[in-house]
Order: sequence, then C-alpha cells, then structure tokens
Amino acid sequence: MTTAGRAPVPDRDPIDRVTGVAAPVVTLLTDFGLRDEFAGVMEGVILQTAPEARVLHLTHGIPPQAVLLGALALAGAVPYTPVGVHVAVVDPDVGSDRRAVVLRTGDGRLLVGPDNGVLLPAAERVGGVTGAWEITDDRLFRHPVSKTFHGRDVFAPVAGRLATGLDPAAVGPALDPETLDRLDLGTPTVGPGHVRATVLSIDRFGNTALNVTGEALDEVGLRLGGRVEIAAGDGRYYAERAATFADVAAGQMVIYDDSSGWTALAVNRGSLAEVCGLTLGDPVELRAR
Amino acid sequence: MTTAGRAPVPDRDPIDRVTGVAAPVVTLLTDFGLRDEFAGVMEGVILQTAPEARVLHLTHGIPPQAVLLGALALAGAVPYTPVGVHVAVVDPDVGSDRRAVVLRTGDGRLLVGPDNGVLLPAAERVGGVTGAWEITDDRLFRHPVSKTFHGRDVFAPVAGRLATGLDPAAVGPALDPETLDRLDLGTPTVGPGHVRATVLSIDRFGNTALNVTGEALDEVGLRLGGRVEIAAGDGRYYAERAATFADVAAGQMVIYDDSSGWTALAVNRGSLAEVCGLTLGDPVELRAR
Amino acid sequence: MTTAGRAPVPDRDPIDRVTGVAAPVVTLLTDFGLRDEFAGVMEGVILQTAPEARVLHLTHGIPPQAVLLGALALAGAVPYTPVGVHVAVVDPDVGSDRRAVVLRTGDGRLLVGPDNGVLLPAAERVGGVTGAWEITDDRLFRHPVSKTFHGRDVFAPVAGRLATGLDPAAVGPALDPETLDRLDLGTPTVGPGHVRATVLSIDRFGNTALNVTGEALDEVGLRLGGRVEIAAGDGRYYAERAATFADVAAGQMVIYDDSSGWTALAVNRGSLAEVCGLTLGDPVELRAR
Repeated sequence: MTTAGRAPVPDRDPIDRVTGVAAPVVTLLTDFGLRDEFAGVMEGVILQTAPEARVLHLTHGIPPQAVLLGALALAGAVPYTPVGVHVAVVDPDVGSDRRAVVLRTGDGRLLVGPDNGVLLPAAERVGGVTGAWEITDDRLFRHPVSKTFHGRDVFAPVAGRLATGLDPAAVGPALDPETLDRLDLGTPTVGPGHVRATVLSIDRFGNTALNVTGEALDEVGLRLGGRVEIAAGDGRYYAERAATFADVAAGQMVIYDDSSGWTALAVNRGSLAEVCGLTLGDPVELRAR
Repeated sequence: MTTAGRAPVPDRDPIDRVTGVAAPVVTLLTDFGLRDEFAGVMEGVILQTAPEARVLHLTHGIPPQAVLLGALALAGAVPYTPVGVHVAVVDPDVGSDRRAVVLRTGDGRLLVGPDNGVLLPAAERVGGVTGAWEITDDRLFRHPVSKTFHGRDVFAPVAGRLATGLDPAAVGPALDPETLDRLDLGTPTVGPGHVRATVLSIDRFGNTALNVTGEALDEVGLRLGGRVEIAAGDGRYYAERAATFADVAAGQMVIYDDSSGWTALAVNRGSLAEVCGLTLGDPVELRAR
Repeated sequence: MTTAGRAPVPDRDPIDRVTGVAAPVVTLLTDFGLRDEFAGVMEGVILQTAPEARVLHLTHGIPPQAVLLGALALAGAVPYTPVGVHVAVVDPDVGSDRRAVVLRTGDGRLLVGPDNGVLLPAAERVGGVTGAWEITDDRLFRHPVSKTFHGRDVFAPVAGRLATGLDPAAVGPALDPETLDRLDLGTPTVGPGHVRATVLSIDRFGNTALNVTGEALDEVGLRLGGRVEIAAGDGRYYAERAATFADVAAGQMVIYDDSSGWTALAVNRGSLAEVCGLTLGDPVELRAR
C-alpha cells in the first residue's frame, strides 16, 4: 500500500498516546462463567464502591480453576486496555491461607488477585512488577466475608477502592515480588529442524497455541513458507508455516504466530484441536519436511 | 489478623455508605442466553430511552423459562448492586395475560418484570415490597409491540423511563402486593440429626445448593466440623460440614453455607453435581454420622 | 385497554425521539465467543482510542465464521440501539485480500467490518447505504497488525477513531456501494396454500426462523388462526398460525411472526428445533390444512 492519495488524518495523537478525561477502568477476568450471577455481582460491588468506574469484562470463560489459562488470557488482554485496575479471580484455593495481592506494574497499572501466578505473565507484558502488597486490611472488605466468594467480598471492593484512588500500600504489608507464586509454562525441547512443545491453550475456533514462540521456530530453521510435519497423539499431519490461515487452502493446516506471539496450529476454516484430538498439556512435535 | 501495623485507610465513608454522583444503574437478568442478540437489544433500547444510564448485565444464563432459578439468581445479585432499576425477564407466559409489574423495595429500588414470582425473593432481601404497579400504559412501550419479545418492547423502555426519573405510579394502576404471584421453594423436612431437602440450584462449578439454610442445620445438630452422610439417588457419600472447600482435602466432599446463605454441597476442586448425578429438584438427605 | 384512568405521563418526547447528551456508542458483534479474551480486548482497544465511548456488546455468540447468522443478528439489533458506530467481525477471510469497509447509513450510523455481506442487512433496516469507504489507511491501525486478529488491530481502533469524530472518508477511498459483497438468503417457493422455505436461524429456545415473511404467508392464504402442516425431514407436524406461543397449549406447535419479522416455528414451552431435528439451511414446507 502506498501513502499517495490517502485522505488526511486529523491532527491527533497516535492511538497509543491518546488520553482522555475518562472514568477509571476496572477490568475483570474470572473462571465464574456467565451462567450464574457471579460476574454481575462483582461489577455491582465495584459500582457500589466506585460509582464512576468503568467495568470492562475481559472474559469469565476461563475453565474452572484453570489458573494457567487465566494467566495467559490476562496477559493477552491487559496490554490492550487502558491503564487501570485489573482483577483476575481464578482461585482454586479461595478460603485457604493463599495470599491475596495487589501488584503495581511498570506502566502504572494495578493488578489484583490471588497469589497463585495468575497475575504475573500479564505484569511481565506491561513493564514488570514494580511493587507488591498483600491484601490484609479487612476494613476494605464487604462483611460478612464469604469463605467461598472472595471475588465479591474481597477483590471487588478492594479494586473499587483502588479505582477511586486508594494508595495500594493501604491494602496491607509490602511483599518482596520474588516471593510471588509463579506458574510453569513448561520448556520446549528444540533442536535443528524440530521442536517438541506442549499445548498451552485452545481457543473457540480450535486454534491451538504451543508453549514456544515464533522466534524459536525461526532459530531452528522452521521458516515461513516451509513444510512442517506435526506429530500429535498417534497422528502425523502436514502444515505450512505461514502468516495467517488465509495463506493456505480451506481445510489445510497452518502454523503461524498467533495474536499473542505464541506458535499456533490451525486448520483454515476448520478446528485443528478437533482434527488432531488435542487437549491442554498434550505434547506436539514439529519437524521440518 | 491483628490491627497492629496496618497502613492507615484514608478517611472515607465505609463502603456500604459510599455514594457518588453517578449515572442511574439499570441491571438486567434474563434467560435469553448470549448466543443471540436479545440481551444486547435490551441494553440498546434502554440507552435509546435513557442515554445516561449504566447497564449492568447480571446474567443472561438462566436456563430457558426457569423462573425459580432466575428468582434465586436475582436475589443473590441485587443486594450487591447500586440502588437502581432492576429488570428480570424469565417469562414463559410472554404474550399471555400474565401481568407485567414494577415493584418498589424498602431500600428504594425498582424491580421490573413479569408477575410470575421472579422478582419477589430479591425484593425480600432489600427491604420488601413497599409499592407495586401493573404496567399497562402502552404509551411507554416501543411500537409495534412484539408478542414474543416484551423484553425489548415493554420492559426495556419502561425500565429506561424509570431510570430517567419516571414515577412508577405512571406505568399503570397500583396493585395489592398480596396478589403478586409467588414461587414455591419447597419445604425441607428436618428432624434430630437429619434434613431432607431438594436441589435448588447448581452453579458452573457443580456446587449444589439445597432449599435449606445453615441455621436449620445448626438447629438439628449438623454442626461445623461434623461428619455427615449424604443420600442422593442410589448413592451414599460422606462429607464434613465446614466453612469452605479448602477446609477439606482435594476430592473430598464438603457441606457449607454458600455465598447466598443456602446450604450447599461441593467437592473440593471437583464437581459435586457430576459425582452425585444431581439435577434440579432432586431430593437429598443429610444425616449426622 | 382504555385510556380512561391512566396515570399522566410526564411531558417528554416520545421514546423514539429522546436524545440525551451521552457518550458516543460503539456496538460490537462477533463470532469470538466469550470463552477467550477477544471480545474484552476489542472493548479495551476502543477505550484506549475513545476513552469516552460506551461499548455495547450485541453478541459474541455467532457460530464461528457464520457470516449469514451474523448479518441477521446485526440486522435484528442495530435498529434498537442508539445511532453510533457498529462493528461486526465475522470474518473467515481475515488476513486475505477481502476488503475492510465503513458504511454510512441513511439514519447516520457508521457500520464497520469486513466486506463479506455481514453489514448489509442491518444497513437496509436503517435507511440503506448512503456512503461506503474501504479501510486502507494503516496510520489508524494498531501496530504490529496481527494477521489473524483484525478485530483488535484494525476494526477496533478505526471504530474508536470514528466514535471520536473522525470523518469516515479519512479511512480510505470511497467505494461504489454496488460493489459490496452480498449474502444470499435463498428464495422461498410459494404457491396457493403452501410455502417451501429454509431455516435461517435457530435461537437458544429452539425457535426456528425461516427465510420467508409473515406477509408472504398471508398472501398464499396461510392466515392467522389457520391450521398448517409442517413437513421437516421425514416428519409431519401440525401447528396453528398465531400471534405468539401463548396462543397455543403447552407442547403445541405455533407459526408466528418473530420479533425481527421472519416467519418462525416454535413449540410453546419447548424447543421446536429439537423436536423436529432441524438445523440451519434445512428445507421446511408449510401447507394449509
């Protein structure tokens, strides 16, 4: 595309520097689903606490208690939202002594959730953790505090207060970020012309992300335009490494860098996860052919 | 937790007294699901009618025509939202002569929906019904009024008008609250050391609420920390009555007070409804062991 | 209902002329589902670009890549939302050379999406297409532009800019609306006392819309109150043509004009699609009996 003949763009800041006088944004990501009222209740408590906040639901469709999938989804979303307060509740240990935390990121966001690793991949995408506090001050909570719904009684009111300007240091004692719980994404095995990785996530289209980046594929010689054998379960499949689905014919397999930067497998206009029978954590081997 | 060493909390009202100058809130709860555009259409009509309103979607995941489940979800959500206009549409009799109503509650909310019982449990949690009107003035409706989508053509525009300050008495004639249709939650049978109840609701995690409260369990001697036999279908299971899932080992059953106050059964990190094969309305017997 | 005795309605504009000073509205409709974070990411990018915008999610439940269903849902929703920017992303050809477009409608809306027909039925319901432009100016995009997620990197930032007042002519060259890609809804066969049509859509209740209007039924003599034989698959069923479900007994079939104006088939308090085993595109024959 050339620039000749383009209509003039009004003189404005580039998109990523646009700032407006807008209400504070609170984003929510949980494994609560949308069948029950739980996600709506969290928004309700936030609005009780911070009537001017804007609540943005990232997703409530994380599979129950799937902390790793929650962490990946949060990391895939937070950079694309205004700087705000970002709550993630995927919390199999609710009611136990797992810590509840607030993290401040390099770009000024506040991440709120359980200390089980769900917040850290997102923090790493937006400047890293520059401050961490344990949420202990129960004057900030809704009472009585349900033992099973900290989203409503702990995380939502704390997030609301942060959205109205509460200093994160007011939630409780500072933590050493090195002590925060971390998730293990696994380590792919790479060698000349091949990669052995595992399935990180599968989206609604059946597109399947692996725990390896496109850069790693470049390094071992699985280059754009090349033919790749995929070994998954008992099956052997052949794919092209390409930029997008539409680079291959309908029904053909493609290996591409997904919108979050992971190496992903897809069938153009089909569901790769279904074709290959893949589920989370399954091993997949890619080999140049 | 001790109060020593807590960071100071800025001098503000407690959460439940925070009030802000904010847009009027309209909450929506329906059985429309999110596959179709119906829930979005309701928000659209509300914004056409009340451009400054904030629309909060509590849930649209009530199973089709499940009035009782809608009523329970609404009761579990409304107390956790700002005072506003609260619409519930689970309406198997849409288009018939069932009445459409507005109820005013003791704490100043307006509940809007069909007169089939879906609104009353919520009203009882927020001060009871202090006024009731039948919606009859069709000057408030969208025209033509679809016979099958009163959510769009009756409830949404009326809710929008109420959100902009319309006196509820303007929607139609006042009703005697005693004439409102009520739902039957069933009556549990209790005796020394045992309770026979039925399944009220099952959430996405498989946690299963019964039509009996924790107080009733206390009274018959099924106390915190005690061992309880659960008879469900042909199965016999053993659980501890505890405060939360995390009080028992992964895979173990627990009986607890859920976040709405009902007695609920769960498997820590599992789905009790699946393990026990329970569905709505099933009888469940609890016996001290 | 008589007008005698009605409570007075405050002196205000009729609903359809109410206008308020409100934030610009951006509506979203996609096939992204709500399991992943994609819909939330689109709202996030819109708020990064247009911090004052109101984002209204029409639905993200369009089946993957079902352009026709997306077009029907958009047409069923847009007329019931405030005039604004309306984005639809059902886009099997993302990353190919299919065009991205902005359409201006007779009532002043801007529709944004791929040029695959998804926008046109909605445009036709709100005054038709009065201007069309191809989106080519990549200064408006988020960079780097993912090859697989134009919702995030192309459509959302362009929609946000349009919501803040960008002239649609600034997105790229004007198009002849006659060159826009159109969908084929099929053509029903009609004759005296019978209609042969196909299934256009099935909602969550199992109500099944056909590609024929109530007017066409009137013309061939399938009138309100009449008995109709439905031939679907190997089955023969009998229904009454009525105004709504509640006009027939529970469990009985009814043929009615749905809230979008299509002829639809339903079982009162049941799922017609399940009873008849119908899926999208299936032929259905209606015959007066």
